[in-house]
Amino acid sequence: MNRFVARSLMRGLIDGSEHSRRGISTVREHQSVGALGGFYWTRAMSSVAPGPTTTTVSEKKEKGAEAKKSDETAVVSSYWGVSRPRIKREDGTEWPWNCFMPWESYKADLSIDLQKHHVPKVFLDKVAYRTVKLLRIPTDIFFKRRYGCRAMMLETVAAVPGMVGGMLLHLRSLRKFEHSGGWIKALLEEAENERMHLMTMVELVKPKWYERLLVLTVQGVFFNAYFIAYLLSPKLAHRIVGYLEEEAIHSYTEYLKDITSGAIENVQAPAIAIDYWKLPKDATLEDVVTVIRADEAHHRDVNHFAADIHFQGKELRDSPAPVGYH
Amino acid sequence: MNRFVARSLMRGLIDGSEHSRRGISTVREHQSVGALGGFYWTRAMSSVAPGPTTTTVSEKKEKGAEAKKSDETAVVSSYWGVSRPRIKREDGTEWPWNCFMPWESYKADLSIDLQKHHVPKVFLDKVAYRTVKLLRIPTDIFFKRRYGCRAMMLETVAAVPGMVGGMLLHLRSLRKFEHSGGWIKALLEEAENERMHLMTMVELVKPKWYERLLVLTVQGVFFNAYFIAYLLSPKLAHRIVGYLEEEAIHSYTEYLKDITSGAIENVQAPAIAIDYWKLPKDATLEDVVTVIRADEAHHRDVNHFAADIHFQGKELRDSPAPVGYH
Repeated sequence: MNRFVARSLMRGLIDGSEHSRRGISTVREHQSVGALGGFYWTRAMSSVAPGPTTTTVSEKKEKGAEAKKSDETAVVSSYWGVSRPRIKREDGTEWPWNCFMPWESYKADLSIDLQKHHVPKVFLDKVAYRTVKLLRIPTDIFFKRRYGCRAMMLETVAAVPGMVGGMLLHLRSLRKFEHSGGWIKALLEEAENERMHLMTMVELVKPKWYERLLVLTVQGVFFNAYFIAYLLSPKLAHRIVGYLEEEAIHSYTEYLKDITSGAIENVQAPAIAIDYWKLPKDATLEDVVTVIRADEAHHRDVNHFAADIHFQGKELRDSPAPVGYH
Repeated sequence: MNRFVARSLMRGLIDGSEHSRRGISTVREHQSVGALGGFYWTRAMSSVAPGPTTTTVSEKKEKGAEAKKSDETAVVSSYWGVSRPRIKREDGTEWPWNCFMPWESYKADLSIDLQKHHVPKVFLDKVAYRTVKLLRIPTDIFFKRRYGCRAMMLETVAAVPGMVGGMLLHLRSLRKFEHSGGWIKALLEEAENERMHLMTMVELVKPKWYERLLVLTVQGVFFNAYFIAYLLSPKLAHRIVGYLEEEAIHSYTEYLKDITSGAIENVQAPAIAIDYWKLPKDATLEDVVTVIRADEAHHRDVNHFAADIHFQGKELRDSPAPVGYH
């Protein structure tokens, strides 16, 4: 019998019956990092107590039971030695967010041109433009001037294209053994940024049960539709997103008008928004909508740019991606 | 007619015939950043020449033609004002990589315990373990001791689970309006890290045509299989990946043995590896395989940890994710 097969089988038989071996996990030292973006933070990994190098299965079960009793995941995480670094702010309070770290927060670029528009000239541009305009009709009928609800629900849609595009480019890079030009990262950043818009809006506007149901349905349809669109024609897909973002800018502008006029109450900004966009402590909904709109303008630019690259007959990876903005 | 519908239609008719309006894009200033990981770098955005606020379509076509002639994407990028920041190293040379920036490079943790193993106890653990052991058999038969080729081809598989898991968690976070606990980012980081392993290995081992065909086929099968597995049972999916990583560690250890014995030539490390893992300039294949193996050990820990969280009846978001390692 082939010795490789024999070796694999043997290893499988032996390993299956051995004790689990728990080694001593890495203990990372405390590090104080100098001022970055205006505050100090301390990184500390939870240190793992050195234990015996062999642990019997019954000991492991006990530990598992302890974990359940204390309702602390610390035991589970220390078994594998992985845990989230503990970050503190300058004032000593702990950083409360898991999905972004202090160095990932940023100030939005409010000087960005909100008026930019891609004039549809070729056939696919017109398909993209008219599709988006058609989709606006039922959207406007459903939401009317309920812009908070509109933002909360439509961000669940807006966060899909970046993820689908990023994933398809990732798979392509793998099977073709090609570099990505940074576009996987740029699109995934867009998806995550849109998701942060959602996490912010959901602090302000709670979805009703039928709105949740609608979101579920729309995600099922849109995810699959965009997936197929991106496979068949990435230039059309990016152009559609560019136009969707143009519509988003328009909607957020209307939202701001209603806040300014008093039709929508200008409440305090949620804590997550203040930390994510580095807003002042007394920031309001108006500030939040302003920075979200600036983000959408950037996404518009990125997607129209991506479509332009395709229309020039090139691949995305031929032109370095605009990573790092958010 | 409903005034919202009327407004949408009107806007669509008007916009479709207007000129494209090009505003003046943001010009970011040069910034010198203090020593980070031992070198200075300068960020510079390509500044956009201020132009007229209205551009006729014919001017735009001319610019497009110029872009084609010069084979420079600079014109396209300046139209939308997005471009990659230009980064320089300490020695003044330009940072050549698009898919990672200097601040995303890191030193691998070589003290990580390579021996850790999760003893399969419950039914799903055993399914996961035996699946992986079974998959090893044809793999060993195909590759024998061609570890370079093995690494190059299997990294195309290894980079899939993180992306699938990250995407499904992302979609879930959107439709349930829930926080992610940082797990979307952790899994996407894993996928990108595996892709960087691939980008490194492909500098050393070029795939033949039938190997490319095999990679295509395997990706089609594995992507769909893992997608379904993650939907049905994320705990099984993570456990499988944990065991796959244990096998990867074993394979890389054998690879190192062959390098040490001289059976495989210990060539110079590729430039991308030196920059990504902050290796010394005279690093060799041995150093590269060592850091890759350390990464796989970390992925093993993250995935077994994720499976453990599920087995404890919790959701991933209940336990903060280990983001930021890579």
